[in-house]
Parts: sequence; structure tokens; C-alpha cells
Amino acid sequence: MAGALPIIQFADRSGLVDLGRGHPRPALLPVREWADAVADAVREYGPAALGYGYPAGPGPLVEWLAGRLGVPAAEVFVTAGGSHALDLVCALLVRPGDVVLVDSPTYHLALPILRDYAARLVPVPAGDAVAVADRVGELRAAGHRVPLLYVVPTFNNPTGQSLAGRAELVAAARRTGVAIVEDDTYRELSYDAGAPPALYGLAGGPPVIRVGSFAKTVAPGLRLGFLTADPALVARLATRGYVDSGGGVNHATAVTMASFCRSGRYDEHVTRIRTEYRAARDALVAAVARYLPAAEFTRPAGGWFLWLRLPPGADAGALLPGIEAHGVSYVPGARFCPEPGTGVGHLRLSFSMLEPELLAEGIRRLAAGLAAAEVTW
Amino acid sequence: MAGALPIIQFADRSGLVDLGRGHPRPALLPVREWADAVADAVREYGPAALGYGYPAGPGPLVEWLAGRLGVPAAEVFVTAGGSHALDLVCALLVRPGDVVLVDSPTYHLALPILRDYAARLVPVPAGDAVAVADRVGELRAAGHRVPLLYVVPTFNNPTGQSLAGRAELVAAARRTGVAIVEDDTYRELSYDAGAPPALYGLAGGPPVIRVGSFAKTVAPGLRLGFLTADPALVARLATRGYVDSGGGVNHATAVTMASFCRSGRYDEHVTRIRTEYRAARDALVAAVARYLPAAEFTRPAGGWFLWLRLPPGADAGALLPGIEAHGVSYVPGARFCPEPGTGVGHLRLSFSMLEPELLAEGIRRLAAGLAAAEVTW
Repeated sequence: MAGALPIIQFADRSGLVDLGRGHPRPALLPVREWADAVADAVREYGPAALGYGYPAGPGPLVEWLAGRLGVPAAEVFVTAGGSHALDLVCALLVRPGDVVLVDSPTYHLALPILRDYAARLVPVPAGDAVAVADRVGELRAAGHRVPLLYVVPTFNNPTGQSLAGRAELVAAARRTGVAIVEDDTYRELSYDAGAPPALYGLAGGPPVIRVGSFAKTVAPGLRLGFLTADPALVARLATRGYVDSGGGVNHATAVTMASFCRSGRYDEHVTRIRTEYRAARDALVAAVARYLPAAEFTRPAGGWFLWLRLPPGADAGALLPGIEAHGVSYVPGARFCPEPGTGVGHLRLSFSMLEPELLAEGIRRLAAGLAAAEVTW
Repeated sequence: MAGALPIIQFADRSGLVDLGRGHPRPALLPVREWADAVADAVREYGPAALGYGYPAGPGPLVEWLAGRLGVPAAEVFVTAGGSHALDLVCALLVRPGDVVLVDSPTYHLALPILRDYAARLVPVPAGDAVAVADRVGELRAAGHRVPLLYVVPTFNNPTGQSLAGRAELVAAARRTGVAIVEDDTYRELSYDAGAPPALYGLAGGPPVIRVGSFAKTVAPGLRLGFLTADPALVARLATRGYVDSGGGVNHATAVTMASFCRSGRYDEHVTRIRTEYRAARDALVAAVARYLPAAEFTRPAGGWFLWLRLPPGADAGALLPGIEAHGVSYVPGARFCPEPGTGVGHLRLSFSMLEPELLAEGIRRLAAGLAAAEVTW
């Protein structure tokens, strides 16, 4: 019976150039380096590597993160991934029936997490602080609680772009008492001039809660991330029943990550993948320029995604089956937009998983599929 | 700054023989064997060991668990520990204001998890199915939802005893439509005649949800556990936002556990610790018989705990500071009882963490402390 069930989330779709999946390139996962870090960690920490951990995360990793992020250790909480951080924050802050504001387009898989807490999702343009504040005012006047705004301000998934008007958004959040959950997953993956400052740093802490992850920088299967927040919120998370009962949420992996980071392996690895993903970004951009010369998009300065605008009237969701028949796939833009009917004219292309040659082949097929569907610019 | 923050949950209290902590003996954690399993897993599974995992848990571990537990693979869900399993089940089944039934005494750290879901906890005697059913009837007649009963029926924490009247309890739960959350954490740690049958097996599935853990059998810091439940509930868990987004809740550790189990290391290790913990149990029981010959307790046939009854009128919580002054600690019984005023005449002694010699020394000190406090049988 062994092998009958899958190990990983999605099986390969044979023959398809899948530009939809926001997965790391398997060859770039630090498989041997991680095994080495485990060996180091058990040598260095002994049984403490496998015992009941400190609830907020093991000291060596908390301290490394605090140094890296430039925050006091009391503002750091180690999570079982970025999504888990968002889930935990919702468990503390969101009550059934609350309104949660979400930038649009935004990370599509954050939306079910927010909905798990029975929140009503209301899209706002996070780059327009005045509009956000006005919307909060309207919602509150209508009797709604509005505890938080979720946004991916740096190398956004799906757009690859970074938010302008950061200081203004922070000020608006402070004024209105809405917490900003800043999903900072892609910060380390900058390919040109570096990443813009985190909202968390601009605010000096509250009202921002920053969510980070080792999923893109090291490996998603580790289920390891972190958040930075007001020490009082960190303390509330650390005393949550299942966090305290278990001694942290992913202790052994966090201890290993401390070894991985402190040994210099983390920096080496991130430098390497930044180079590789930059080359992939360049290959995808060049292929779009070659095969779809009139297509509108903004070159992403970081992250894993390119957000392509179709000509007016084209519906990326409706086109997908026909395009897949040409041997390529993508994610239709509407999946990233909580409001029905929005995002339909865009599609998300990921350059993270495939080699540059396959990225180019995918765009060649996409152009052929769009031409066959008589979608022209 | 390295080393300023703790790695593990509790610092040693120097000089104290701590019979309170339900922790594994550090020397029995399979530190080297785990590092070897990681090396095996990355060799065997390559990048799939670190990628986005299958939401219900990686196939090789799900299949091993299914075989071990004698259930279909569709009834297995891999969790980030036993407490996490309980937390997830509550997230699905408990609404604010619900009544959750708990056996009493029971695992004290389950109580905050249940309270995180804003449940009102009502103690019931799980061994008396008629009383449980009657209580459900009363509560429902008073307008309460009663979604579940939490119980540790096998080698209970804190009593070390196993529940009688299992089939009757399952029948009562089925009749009343109350789900039983069976915390089966200690099943593998049986020292005499083996463990009694799981409620899950007696019921053939619903209305039981069984929670299991690798925390006691392998290592708590791995944060790896599992549950078995109706396939529909497993499917609901697998599509929960943060579970699906991350690709399972602890993929890399689960893949490594698959290697650890399938290679025979798991069976070897459990056989070894069973022998060691049996010897520890015997040492503790012998020490109590020697130093506190009139004390009442039932020899535990499994698990990690001995539940000691003090003479009438003695209060284990009030006595603790004085006893600690004699260099030994325990957990007062009231912590395991959700109803104020109950459990005060008992204390929990753990034989898991310390060597037999220290266990005996601890009981010698306990006897001296009780004598000094004029607690006599």
C-alpha cells in the first residue's frame, strides 16, 4: 500500500507548463543543508532540541530573528508558517461577524483563513489611506467591528508590486484603531534595489503585526514562520492553550532553523536563490516581451509573481481551459479578489517553480493559446 | 546576546526533585536516531521532504498510522501534536458559549485549550455512562449545546488509570449525539498487560474522535500527532484555510517520522522506553510503599503518572510550599479538576523525567515533608 497516497500537495500535471503554482523550484530546496543543520542542532543542543520548547519559540531563533529584523526579542513569536501566524492572529482578534479589510488583489489563500473565523471580507485599496479610513468610518457607522486589515505590501502576491503610501496607511490605521496584518513573506526575495521598509518598522510596532515565513527563503514543508507584534500580544499568543501545552508550535524545526541561520547557511542559501529567482524573473519578463509584446504588466522587483493584464473584455477564468489545452496554466486574477466580478481581466504567472527555459516555453504556449482564442491587444 | 533567552519550557529548579513535570527523561529522547531519520528522509524523498505537503499528512506516514491503528487511511489526519489536534477539533465543533464535558480529573492543559474556544466546562464522571447521559439531557433541557466530551480513557493523566465502562460510554455518546474526543496519548506506554481497546475501535469511528501524539513515544519538541475521525471530518480539517495554504501542518517532520517508523526505529525506540519507564514506575511505586506505606494509590499499568491520595482533610495545594522546602515537588490534584474545590486531597507524581534513584529520593523527601506538616495516615 506504500506510495498509494500522495506525499506532496499537488501531483505533476504531465506535459503542462504550470505557471500557476507559487511553489519553490524543487532543485533550490536546501535538502542536504537542512539535514546537516539537523545534525548540528542535535549536537549543539542535545535533548533540548527535542524536548518541550519555550512557548514563544526557542531563544536562539528568537534572538537571531530579533537581530535580523531589528526588534526587541519580546516582540518575536515563532509560528508554524506564515499562514499559521495569520490563523493565530485571527483567533485572538477576530470575532464571528466582524469585518476584516483586505487589500485587493491579495494572497488568495489568506481569504479562506479569514473566512474560517466567520469574518466578512471587505476589499479596500490599501494604497489609498484616505479611502481606507473612510471605509472604516462607514463600516463602523453601520455597526460593524473592524479589527484588522490584511495586506501584502512588499512584492505582493499576486502583483509582484510593493505598496506606495506606506506611512499614510500606518497613520490611518493608528487613527482608526485598525490593526494592520502585514504579510511580509517575500521581503528577502528582492532582485533590484532591495525591499521597501516594512510597515512594522515605519510604525515602530503597533498597530502593525508583521507576519514572516521561512517557506520561500528556506522550505515550505518546514512549516516555520514568525510574527512581530506588541509584546503584550506575543504574551497572549504564548499563553494560548495549545501553544503552552505543547511548548511552542514547532520547536524541533525552530531549533534546527537557529542552527541553519547562525551557521551562515541561511545567508548563503538566500543569496543563492535570490540570484536564481532573479534570473527566472528576467527570463519570464523577456519571454512576455517577446511573445506578448503588447501585454501590460509591471516588472516585479521581488517575490515570485508577474501580474498580467489581458486586453479589455477578456476573462482569464473563462479562457483557462482553452489555454490549458495549449499546455500551459496560470491562476485567473479573480481568485485574488474577494469581490465577485473583480480581477477577471488579470492572470498571475509564477516564475518560482520552473527553470528559465520552461518559463519561456510556457509564455510561448500562452501566446499561442491567447491567439487561438482571438485575444489580441 | 545568544543564550539569554531560554530554549526549553522550564528551567531546572536546582536541588529540587521535581516529580511534577510530565516530561520525558532527556536521556531517553532519540536524538541521534532522529538525526539519522532526517538524513534517510531527505535521501528517500528528496525535495518532496521539504515542499508543500499533502494537507491531511504525507502519504507514507498516513499509511503507516492507518496500518498501526487498524483504520482506513481516509480516517487519519496528521497534526502538530496532540494538543494541536484538540485545538483543531474545537475550532470545528465548539461555538462560543457551548458546554464541553470533561472527565474529572483530567489532563490539566486541555482545559485552557477548551476555554480558548469560550466553552463552559462541565465535569462528568466518564466511567458512569448513565450519569453522563443524564447530565447531557439536563444541559440540553436548559438550552445548552453540548458538542463534545473530552476524556483520557487509557492510562489517564493524572490518574494513570484506564476507564471502565467503555462500551457503555460509547453507546451513551451515540445515543445523545455528543462526540467523544478520546485523548489516546499514552496507549503505547503500557507496562503490564497491554492497553485496553480504544474507544475509537469500540465505536468503529464516530461518535469518537481519537487524538494521538508522538510527544511521549518519540519526542515532544517535534510537535507531531494525529487524529482518527470520520472521513468527512478529516476532509473538513484538510480544507481548513491555514492547513491547505501551508500544505499540511508539519510536513517535513511528518515525512521524517514516516522514515523513523518504517525503518523499524519507532518500534525499537518504544520497546526501549517502555522498559525504562516500567522500571521507573516500579521504582516510584516501591518508594511510595516504603516511605508512605499507608498512602492510597492504584499502581498505574501505563502512562507516566501516579495519583496519590492524601489523608482526609489534607490539601495538596496548601501543602506544596512546605513540601518544596523539603526539596521535592508535585502537581496538586485540584489543577486537574475543572470544578473548584475538587481534587484538593490528591497529588500527581510523575515518574517520566527522573532516574529511579531520584524518584526514590523524591518520595523520601515527600514523606519527610508530609511528616513535618503533620500529615499522617
